[in-house]
Amino acid sequence: MTTLTTTDPRTGTSRDTDLTKTGAEEVAAITEHASAAFAQLHEQPRSWRAGLLRALADGLEADRDGLVEAAMSETGLPEARLNGELSRSAFQFRLFADAVAEGGYLEAIIDHAGPTPLGPGPDVRRILVPIGPVAVFGASNFPFAFSVVGGDTASALAAGNPVVIKAHSSHPVTSQRSFAALERAAAAYGAPAGTFGIVYGQKAGSALVADPRIAAVGFTGSLSTGKILQRIIDERPTPIPFYGELSSLNPLVITAGAAAARTAALGEGLFTSVTGSAGQLCTKPGLAFVPAGAAGDELVADVVSRASAAGAQTLLNARIHSAFDEIRSRLIGDGQARSLVAPQHGDAGFSLTPGVLEIDAADVTAAVTEEAFGPLVVLVRYRSIEEIRTALQAVPHSLTATIHSTAEETQQRAALTEAVTPLVGRIVYDGFPTGVRVSWGMHHGGPWPATNTQHTSVGVTAIRRFLRPLAWQDAPADVLPAELRDGTVDLPRRVDGVLQLAGS
Amino acid sequence: MTTLTTTDPRTGTSRDTDLTKTGAEEVAAITEHASAAFAQLHEQPRSWRAGLLRALADGLEADRDGLVEAAMSETGLPEARLNGELSRSAFQFRLFADAVAEGGYLEAIIDHAGPTPLGPGPDVRRILVPIGPVAVFGASNFPFAFSVVGGDTASALAAGNPVVIKAHSSHPVTSQRSFAALERAAAAYGAPAGTFGIVYGQKAGSALVADPRIAAVGFTGSLSTGKILQRIIDERPTPIPFYGELSSLNPLVITAGAAAARTAALGEGLFTSVTGSAGQLCTKPGLAFVPAGAAGDELVADVVSRASAAGAQTLLNARIHSAFDEIRSRLIGDGQARSLVAPQHGDAGFSLTPGVLEIDAADVTAAVTEEAFGPLVVLVRYRSIEEIRTALQAVPHSLTATIHSTAEETQQRAALTEAVTPLVGRIVYDGFPTGVRVSWGMHHGGPWPATNTQHTSVGVTAIRRFLRPLAWQDAPADVLPAELRDGTVDLPRRVDGVLQLAGS
Repeated sequence: MTTLTTTDPRTGTSRDTDLTKTGAEEVAAITEHASAAFAQLHEQPRSWRAGLLRALADGLEADRDGLVEAAMSETGLPEARLNGELSRSAFQFRLFADAVAEGGYLEAIIDHAGPTPLGPGPDVRRILVPIGPVAVFGASNFPFAFSVVGGDTASALAAGNPVVIKAHSSHPVTSQRSFAALERAAAAYGAPAGTFGIVYGQKAGSALVADPRIAAVGFTGSLSTGKILQRIIDERPTPIPFYGELSSLNPLVITAGAAAARTAALGEGLFTSVTGSAGQLCTKPGLAFVPAGAAGDELVADVVSRASAAGAQTLLNARIHSAFDEIRSRLIGDGQARSLVAPQHGDAGFSLTPGVLEIDAADVTAAVTEEAFGPLVVLVRYRSIEEIRTALQAVPHSLTATIHSTAEETQQRAALTEAVTPLVGRIVYDGFPTGVRVSWGMHHGGPWPATNTQHTSVGVTAIRRFLRPLAWQDAPADVLPAELRDGTVDLPRRVDGVLQLAGS
Repeated sequence: MTTLTTTDPRTGTSRDTDLTKTGAEEVAAITEHASAAFAQLHEQPRSWRAGLLRALADGLEADRDGLVEAAMSETGLPEARLNGELSRSAFQFRLFADAVAEGGYLEAIIDHAGPTPLGPGPDVRRILVPIGPVAVFGASNFPFAFSVVGGDTASALAAGNPVVIKAHSSHPVTSQRSFAALERAAAAYGAPAGTFGIVYGQKAGSALVADPRIAAVGFTGSLSTGKILQRIIDERPTPIPFYGELSSLNPLVITAGAAAARTAALGEGLFTSVTGSAGQLCTKPGLAFVPAGAAGDELVADVVSRASAAGAQTLLNARIHSAFDEIRSRLIGDGQARSLVAPQHGDAGFSLTPGVLEIDAADVTAAVTEEAFGPLVVLVRYRSIEEIRTALQAVPHSLTATIHSTAEETQQRAALTEAVTPLVGRIVYDGFPTGVRVSWGMHHGGPWPATNTQHTSVGVTAIRRFLRPLAWQDAPADVLPAELRDGTVDLPRRVDGVLQLAGS
């Protein structure tokens, strides 16, 4: 009864796994373990934690073949894509190890005691400290990079916190195998038991979020599930930070100049971005503004021709598969959207071919701005920048916006940049928003409902989510963390208002 | 009917002001103005905004006498205290001007395009941008430093946002006069109209928080009002960040060694900290752990003798005055607390003398850990560090904890530091938590219910609350902010993972 099943989306066939739903008592035992591990992790220096992150990357790659095979059978994603995602996850652990070793993420500040315009000031030293055990919810569409071994796990652990993962029901076997790889590597490295935990099943996920030992929650998924988790947090005696990446339409604009100068390249690029991973990426450009007129018509024809010729792609699970049809129908039914290419269901499993809708900019209302997870794009035909600006007001805030223009179109580019700036967290120029670079400066977040906080879930600054500031006043050196003692240190600090590099 | 009254707490007498409650339409007009100002502020460079902050400091000091006089008649706080608070507010604007000019708060990051282990990476540049018009709720206990001209206003404006203030009903005239000083200085400097707005009345405050143009809320006040504001935010179609500083008991521990070595000094220091500003400070040490035994007894006797001899102090308003009695009764009635000094009501207005309660550490339960805003301290008698640790589990998380020990008591200090670290945002050694230094590294925040986020409301890093990250990918220089262009810049940046100082 509590046995978990797994489904191969390529066939639609389910089978029993040897995993079971985690009971409430077991959840409590796991978070108790995490609490104990938290105290032990706290005693280790940054260099130790950087080493742990590197060991996890190695451990992950050591089971590459088994992990990719498990993920193929549970997600329907192609082998090359999954191999790339696993490499990305390993790279992420290593980049975060570099960041931990570098130490700037701690935002160390020392204000020495001394006279101030308001009288004598005490010695104040501040640093960021880990927040406590973090619950991480795996996402369906990234079995590695946003699941057990993903960015939330890497950033929570980089901050110094144990992690308890809620496995996504779409890929329980991959989750278990990922978890085993982490546990094995962590144990070999000497990390305390309880550094990682995993729970299965929706009820266990809810219990995890409600658990008093959990100090923060990281989530990538739907707005509706995000709201459910937020409600559980609101009912806790002690509310905790909830970091949700919830939905995104990612408007893309092609100027008249760009449409004329790069018609075929833009058609190909847009189609590839929309259909990559079967359109199941949170940064998929779901809404593309294409100019009215000949060049725009030609671009639309190019996308239509590619979509009509495309074979079926496999969606991740039955829920996404059926929701896709429902949302597409709503977009057509509620609004003025015209179907240029209707998706066709494939022979087996949760498969279908891409769809293309077209709508006039003046007809863009909230009703046609629902995110359709899957290979669908809505082409919005516009006559002026002003029409784009107006239409964008109906579009929910997104993770990204993209602007394609020619070098000469500086005014249009400036106007479009100004128009999208308040709406998104990343602006892409002459490229595509899919394929989020994992780097120091990447920002993967945006105004509500893209995310629910002013933080990123990709890139080094994602660590900040799982830290809190702590200040020491007039503290004797014996109670201060090494990073806040006087003398030369191995991290950048701000001392009496002046930023100093490591080694100062 | 919508005329606002003001009350002199020294006499309890109310009089009409020439201010009225702000109607719903007026609130909307004010936030509309703020929206327009936001776009204009955005066009100005950092140096301009630093200048504006300095002009505000000057403008505030130019009306010092009138402002202090207004505040005296509305708060009952003494002239020296109010003069100090005004100086603090002016200093705060100037410190934030320095921070804006320095630019490190922008967390600028540049990742150049280039090969990565995952293939070619795009150019990614990230900076923090202002979030939008901010609603600031004035606090009753700081008519300047946490009200119209306070830290939330300074940090929201430093970030580049217009500010709309909800005046506290305890000091409407001071609020209006503070606002006039800001508006005058801002206009003379050339800031856009709408950079500042102000609303009066509880309904106007609710309308402000619900207003779609408001992008964040800063609040210092009670947990109960904080929860009401959070509920309004939860009902918005677009939830926004809410920064609440909500309550704090600020446990203070005196070790056996410290009690013996510095008995009288600690008695005096504790009494002064508890009764400063009539105990109406969010960092008042409400719970002081004093060792059992002779030295502790002597320290308690010292505090008792000071409290018994003390004259009446004036509380801020009728609500605080009556709540103080109620809470004190609850602490005695619900728990095992013994009254050592019972507060006496003064002759006029909202006045009373200080109170001292005593309780055994073993009897500390949630029932006796309610914050009593006013001159009351609960002395907790303990026999072992373990008893303190257990008692602290019943104490709600706080802004601060304080540890008094001798130089030799390294083990006790380490154990106490470890015990309080998860519970607070600042640890004070051999001093007192009241008198929060406004500096680069100050942290004034703590785990729930001290505050509801991982941010501070005092010190330079308070600016972070009113900023959000924005990234540009493969952007032509013409759309990038000056801070993210290649070449030498006037702020620190992280370039390809390496932190560089300004001028690099």
